[in-house]
Amino acid sequence: MTAQMPAPPSPREIEIEVLDGGLEVVPGLKTSGIAAGIKPDGKLDLGVIVADAPCNIAGVFTQNQAAAAPILLCKELLAKQRICRAVVVNSGNANALTGAQGDEDARAVAEAAEAHFGGPVLPLSTGVIGVPLPRERIISGLAGCKAQLGADTTSFAQAILTTDTCTKQAARRVRLADGDWAYVGGVAKGSGMIHPNMATMLAFLATDAPVSSAALDGVLRRITATTFNQISVDGDTSTNDAVLALAPTDPQGELHDGSPQVRDLEEAFRQVAADLAEQIVADGEGATKVLQLRVHGARWPGDARAIARAIIASPLVKTALHGGDANWGRIIAAAGNAGVEFDLDALELRLGGHLVFTDGHPQLDEQELAERCFKDDRVRAELKVGDGGAEVTVLTSDLSADYVSINANYRT
Amino acid sequence: MTAQMPAPPSPREIEIEVLDGGLEVVPGLKTSGIAAGIKPDGKLDLGVIVADAPCNIAGVFTQNQAAAAPILLCKELLAKQRICRAVVVNSGNANALTGAQGDEDARAVAEAAEAHFGGPVLPLSTGVIGVPLPRERIISGLAGCKAQLGADTTSFAQAILTTDTCTKQAARRVRLADGDWAYVGGVAKGSGMIHPNMATMLAFLATDAPVSSAALDGVLRRITATTFNQISVDGDTSTNDAVLALAPTDPQGELHDGSPQVRDLEEAFRQVAADLAEQIVADGEGATKVLQLRVHGARWPGDARAIARAIIASPLVKTALHGGDANWGRIIAAAGNAGVEFDLDALELRLGGHLVFTDGHPQLDEQELAERCFKDDRVRAELKVGDGGAEVTVLTSDLSADYVSINANYRT
Repeated sequence: MTAQMPAPPSPREIEIEVLDGGLEVVPGLKTSGIAAGIKPDGKLDLGVIVADAPCNIAGVFTQNQAAAAPILLCKELLAKQRICRAVVVNSGNANALTGAQGDEDARAVAEAAEAHFGGPVLPLSTGVIGVPLPRERIISGLAGCKAQLGADTTSFAQAILTTDTCTKQAARRVRLADGDWAYVGGVAKGSGMIHPNMATMLAFLATDAPVSSAALDGVLRRITATTFNQISVDGDTSTNDAVLALAPTDPQGELHDGSPQVRDLEEAFRQVAADLAEQIVADGEGATKVLQLRVHGARWPGDARAIARAIIASPLVKTALHGGDANWGRIIAAAGNAGVEFDLDALELRLGGHLVFTDGHPQLDEQELAERCFKDDRVRAELKVGDGGAEVTVLTSDLSADYVSINANYRT
Repeated sequence: MTAQMPAPPSPREIEIEVLDGGLEVVPGLKTSGIAAGIKPDGKLDLGVIVADAPCNIAGVFTQNQAAAAPILLCKELLAKQRICRAVVVNSGNANALTGAQGDEDARAVAEAAEAHFGGPVLPLSTGVIGVPLPRERIISGLAGCKAQLGADTTSFAQAILTTDTCTKQAARRVRLADGDWAYVGGVAKGSGMIHPNMATMLAFLATDAPVSSAALDGVLRRITATTFNQISVDGDTSTNDAVLALAPTDPQGELHDGSPQVRDLEEAFRQVAADLAEQIVADGEGATKVLQLRVHGARWPGDARAIARAIIASPLVKTALHGGDANWGRIIAAAGNAGVEFDLDALELRLGGHLVFTDGHPQLDEQELAERCFKDDRVRAELKVGDGGAEVTVLTSDLSADYVSINANYRT
């Protein structure tokens, strides 16, 4: 018999369970959605998230220079205090490019909602740009939202949709370092090909663990970088994009950044956000496939992003993906067009793990294998552009004829 | 009776006549095109332009980091001497991303052509990327090209096409300051939505006036900026883009930049190039409409270009154009996404001359008028982004379902 050495203590695995549903799994929150008459077709178009008590809140917002009125108001409110009692979201009208009237309308909606739910209230909008917000319909609808709070688990997720074909929800349960279970839930809207289409993306995340607003802000920024920013490519966003995260306050002591509990929670938040991001891309307007592209070996993060953006913005790449044609030359041609210098001889392109281009020329024996991978619903591409340490991973969907008919005929 | 003052001498008007045809109107040049078996369908795929004697030549080439082998060879040859006897162009294969073999193939084609036509010869290619050039078919086809030289006026223009649906030719006759008539002809290929699609654009311009190579270079760079660069947006080009200009040498004395003759010739060159650029956009893959967008009032030219590029790269804008929907909000949302700061309140958008957005909000009374203009085949948009002096004008075509089917199924 040989002596058994005791195993070294392994880093604690984070215990996370996937749950059905979205925000409603989080104790202390209720949601609802109704048809307020903003959309012409009688669909649900007004939703609220209401917390039992004022919450800590963090938000990330569009960097578009033409940001919508509700975005500007949310940023103003969060600059004053990171506390929120309720979120009101309408679809069917973006309240974007609506001038001073739009600012007034956003403020009126928030104030009316405070009378119903307590404050502060953050308003958000998505839908057609440049049309005055039908604020009276929204304000009139708030009583109905209040009456329906908690009545079902999908009407909020439905009420925030525009061209989406399905609701997007995700939830996790995570055992924190102190042994307690915490819940993280999320709901999103957005219909793939976010970049470069700029269909609005909205996402709402919440937990029942009392995370401080500063810690929540850190968590939200870190997880956004590797989830929602994979589909929008840094800063390339619509007039109305927003991601909010809520957590209860706790006068007895809140969880702070750097604590083991927040580390564990962050992983649950990340999983929920990644799940929602993937649902958004898969629900691309007319989309039938998803491309996951990793650009690595760049000198600077900005270089990696510029190359990734040039590739996923290329209609030639997106149509090749749609056609199931492993037209890898279009990927490299698009990369060459990013305004970033690279050495063609140092470039390596892998499709589905197969090396199709290296040393300045294609690897013909690998191409047949690569072509097979382009037929799949999910295609993985990796482009090495040098020996640098910067990389980025992005997701996009294909460009189909259905996409064109949706957007040629949809007035939003 | 009042005394008649003599009219002040008016600046001489440049006398220019539009001619039918393209390169073949230029004395001293012959062209031909044949089917060499590069394209699988037996279509014309190999063309030559041959001058009676070595010519002065100028060229502008793609800035794509993955420039094709023939582009690199042309640049190398022009760096040595700006003289050219013939140009050989094949379609069906781009000889791009083909490594050292591609370089050898381009050189072999040029050398074989020199044996037929005299040198130097510039080779160019367009078509599928990443497939070895079938150089033996090209070299075997050169004798046929030579036999057909001057036999017709369209086979060269046909032989250089890929997804184009029609040939593109333009010609002018211009009376120079010294009273002599000179001819300028041109042929191009390229199938609209050049940006951001990067379908290759090739254009060949020539004159019978003995312009020095330095003057020709200046003329070519200036006219490209306001014609072909309107459709590609500076530097945003495919692996194979090239524009060449030829003019005879004259040991008795050539025309130099700054001379009245070159000034007049430049206007004829500009008209031919503008005509070809417009033909390229109108022949967009699946295109049914053309958008002319002027971005002005920017602080720097790079700002104006970035905003214009963001707008014409937006599938949402292109599909709205296709649907005839004056969805002006998408234009401003795309502008806001260009990474250029601007004051939304200083923005002014005109569609078809109608002011639809100013002072931060839409001008609703003008929208009905604007909507009518979006139904036209040619839509004009002007976006003022501030009080700066920089501007750019670009052309793009719409995004149709036909575009998707062409590019999902076309392997090139």
